Amino acid sequence: MRRILTLTTDFGISDGYVAAMKGVVFTSVPGAQIVDITHQVPPQDVAAGAFAMYCACPFFPEGSVHVGVVDPGVGSDRRGIVVETEQFVYVGPDNGLFSPVYEREVVRRIVAIENAALMRSQVSSTFHGRDVFAQVGAHLLKGVSCEEVGTKIGDPVTCDLWGVEERDDALVGRVVCVDHFGNAISMIARSQIDAKYPDRNFEIIIGEIRFDRICQTYSQVEKGKTLALYGSLDTLEIAVCGGSASRTLGVKRGDEICVYRGQGRRDSS
Amino acid sequence: MRRILTLTTDFGISDGYVAAMKGVVFTSVPGAQIVDITHQVPPQDVAAGAFAMYCACPFFPEGSVHVGVVDPGVGSDRRGIVVETEQFVYVGPDNGLFSPVYEREVVRRIVAIENAALMRSQVSSTFHGRDVFAQVGAHLLKGVSCEEVGTKIGDPVTCDLWGVEERDDALVGRVVCVDHFGNAISMIARSQIDAKYPDRNFEIIIGEIRFDRICQTYSQVEKGKTLALYGSLDTLEIAVCGGSASRTLGVKRGDEICVYRGQGRRDSS
Amino acid sequence: MRRILTLTTDFGISDGYVAAMKGVVFTSVPGAQIVDITHQVPPQDVAAGAFAMYCACPFFPEGSVHVGVVDPGVGSDRRGIVVETEQFVYVGPDNGLFSPVYEREVVRRIVAIENAALMRSQVSSTFHGRDVFAQVGAHLLKGVSCEEVGTKIGDPVTCDLWGVEERDDALVGRVVCVDHFGNAISMIARSQIDAKYPDRNFEIIIGEIRFDRICQTYSQVEKGKTLALYGSLDTLEIAVCGGSASRTLGVKRGDEICVYRGQGRRDSS
Repeated sequence: MRRILTLTTDFGISDGYVAAMKGVVFTSVPGAQIVDITHQVPPQDVAAGAFAMYCACPFFPEGSVHVGVVDPGVGSDRRGIVVETEQFVYVGPDNGLFSPVYEREVVRRIVAIENAALMRSQVSSTFHGRDVFAQVGAHLLKGVSCEEVGTKIGDPVTCDLWGVEERDDALVGRVVCVDHFGNAISMIARSQIDAKYPDRNFEIIIGEIRFDRICQTYSQVEKGKTLALYGSLDTLEIAVCGGSASRTLGVKRGDEICVYRGQGRRDSS
Repeated sequence: MRRILTLTTDFGISDGYVAAMKGVVFTSVPGAQIVDITHQVPPQDVAAGAFAMYCACPFFPEGSVHVGVVDPGVGSDRRGIVVETEQFVYVGPDNGLFSPVYEREVVRRIVAIENAALMRSQVSSTFHGRDVFAQVGAHLLKGVSCEEVGTKIGDPVTCDLWGVEERDDALVGRVVCVDHFGNAISMIARSQIDAKYPDRNFEIIIGEIRFDRICQTYSQVEKGKTLALYGSLDTLEIAVCGGSASRTLGVKRGDEICVYRGQGRRDSS
Repeated sequence: MRRILTLTTDFGISDGYVAAMKGVVFTSVPGAQIVDITHQVPPQDVAAGAFAMYCACPFFPEGSVHVGVVDPGVGSDRRGIVVETEQFVYVGPDNGLFSPVYEREVVRRIVAIENAALMRSQVSSTFHGRDVFAQVGAHLLKGVSCEEVGTKIGDPVTCDLWGVEERDDALVGRVVCVDHFGNAISMIARSQIDAKYPDRNFEIIIGEIRFDRICQTYSQVEKGKTLALYGSLDTLEIAVCGGSASRTLGVKRGDEICVYRGQGRRDSS
C-alpha cells in the first residue's frame, strides 16, 4: 500500500485550510504519512508551485502521491487531473502545474477527475483542495486506480515554466526562483553548458554582472562576493557568499541569465 | 486507540516551543500522529484561534484530540479544561477558545484539568502548552478518560466570537477572518440568508460597497473585480477575483457586513 | 528501532529544500516520524539554531535523531559530525551548532562523517542537508552505528553561545533569543541566581530598566507592564504582560542583562 501523500499549495500557514485537507486524508486513510512540500507558493503563482514540486517530489519514495493545489481557476470549468508516472501519482488542477512532470518523468496516463463518488459528498465551489484533490489523493493512496477516477485525456495544459533556450551563440535562461537565501536559480543545466562549451570557455551574464567561471561551492569566494555555481538541482545559480544575491544584486524572478562563448564575446567587444 | 492529536497555537514557527510540545506527546505516545492546524494565530488572539480550529477540526477523524493553546492568562488562575464531544476531545485554556465547539457539537462533558499526575512533573508557570496541555492531550490519546483528568464543570467561559445578529430588516455580521488570500470571511451562513430571503431579493453591504447577488465561484467575475460568494465554510465571503479583498477594499477583521432586503432598501433610498 | 528524526534548519519554509530532505529520509526509512523543530533560523545563524534545538530536543524520546543544518561552510572543508550522547544522536556540520549538547548531555562519542556509502550517491556541494546529513540521519535511524559513519574525533568546534559570566559582584548574561512573543530570553539560570543571592536581594538591569523582583507569571503585573520572570527554560527572561518586550523596550539579541547584589548597588549609587 502507498503511504506518503505530499501537499504543495498557495494556502499559507495561517489559516485552517491545509489542516482541513489533512483531516480529509486522515479520515480516509488513518495511517497516511502526509508531508508538506510548501504552502508558501505566492498566491495563484502556478510556475512557482511547479518549481517547488520539482525541487522536492523526486526525492520521495516511489508510489508517493503528490497533491498540488495552486488553482486560480477553482470553480471554473478547468479540469482536475491525475497524472500517473512510472514513479509517482500527481493530483491537482490542469493548469500547467504538472508541466515539468511531463518533461522529466515517464507518464503512464493522465485522467480527468470525474467520478463524484471519489470526492467529498459536498463539493465547495471555492475549495477543491479539500473536497476534490485531497479526497481523490486519499483514495489513490488506498489503492484506487486512475481508471476509476475518470477518462483518459491526451491534452493536458502545458506551459514553458523554465524558459531555457539554446541559440547559436548562447544559452539563455532566466531566474525561475529566488530562494530563501536570496540565491537566484536558473534551469540552465550543467549538462547543457558542458555540451555547448566543452572547452569551458564561456561567460555568464546577468544584468550588469559577468562571471567567467563556475564555482564548486559558496565558500570558494570571499564572504560578500558574488559567484556563479551549480546549485542543488545541478543548474546554474547566482549567489553571494554568506549573503543574498537578491538583496545585493537586485536580481529577481524572471531576470535573464545568459551563457555566451567567452572568446567570441571578448572579440566583439 | 486514538492516534491523531492536532495543535493550534499562537507560538509561531521560529522558536522551539511547538516542537517541545510534540516531543512531550511522542515521549508518551510513540506512535502518535501530530498534525499542525496553525501556529500563526496572532499572539493572544483567542477569537482567531477559535476560528482556525473551527475551519479545520471538524474534518478530522472521530476521536481526534484537538489541543488549542492561545493563552494570555497562562499562569494566572484561569482553568485548563478538557471538552469531550460526541466526535472529538478538546484540550486547552478555559478562555472562550472552545466557544464554537459548544454551539456546533454535542458536548458530553467538560472537566477542569486538576490531576497533577497527568501533567509533566515540573510545570513551568509560563508554558502550560508543553507541561499541561500537550501532556494531558497525550494521556487522552492513550485512552485516559476525562473523569481521571478532573471534576466536571458546568460554566465554561464562552464568548460571542462570530457576532451574527438577526434583526427585523437585516442579517448583520462581521469579518471574522481575513485569510491568506485576502478574502474577508463572515459567519453569515447560506442557510440563514436562504431562510430570511427565500426570494433571493437582498442586498449585501460592506463599507461603501454593495452586492445584489452571491456568486458561485471566484471566476464568475472578471479578474480584479469584487464579488460576494459562499466560501468553503458555506458562509458569506467578500473576495476579489485573482486578487485580495483586503488590499483592494481595505476590509479588515471586525468590519460589519450586512444583508438587507433588496427591495426595501431600494424603496427607501 | 529508532523512529523519530527531527530537523532544524535555516532553509525557510517557502522552498522545496526541507521536503527534499524528508523525501530522502522516507526513501530510506518508510516508517520514520519526522518532526520539524524550526526552519526559520535566521540564515547562517549558528547560535540561533543551537538555541532552537536547545529548547526542543531534550523533550523528545530517548534515541531520537536530531539533524541540524545551519551550515555557512557547506562545501568547504568543515567537517560533518555525528554526536552520540546518552539520550540522543545529533547529525550536522561541525561548526558549534552542537556546543550546548557537549555541556548539557553526557557525550559517548563524536565521529566525523566519512563513509561515502552512507551518503547519497551524488553529493551536491551546496546541499549537504539533503545529500549527507538527512541520509546519514536516516541510516542512524535504521540502526547503523556511529562507528560505521567515520572515525572518532576529540576536538569538535565549540563556541560560547550563551555568554553567562559570573563576576564577583554580578551575574552577567545577554539576550540569546527574542522569541515570537517578543520575550527577551537569557541563559542566566534560576539556580545560578538562587546560589549567588540566597537572600533574594538582587537587582536586574537591562538597558535603562531595573527590576528588583522576579515574577512567577506574566499576569502578575498589569497588562502592558514590564516584568522579569523565569521562562520555560527556567532562565531569566524579560517580558511585557500581554505585549512584546522587544517592541516596547527595544531589547534585541545580544543585549546585556545583569544581576547585581541589590543592597550593594544601592549603597554605591
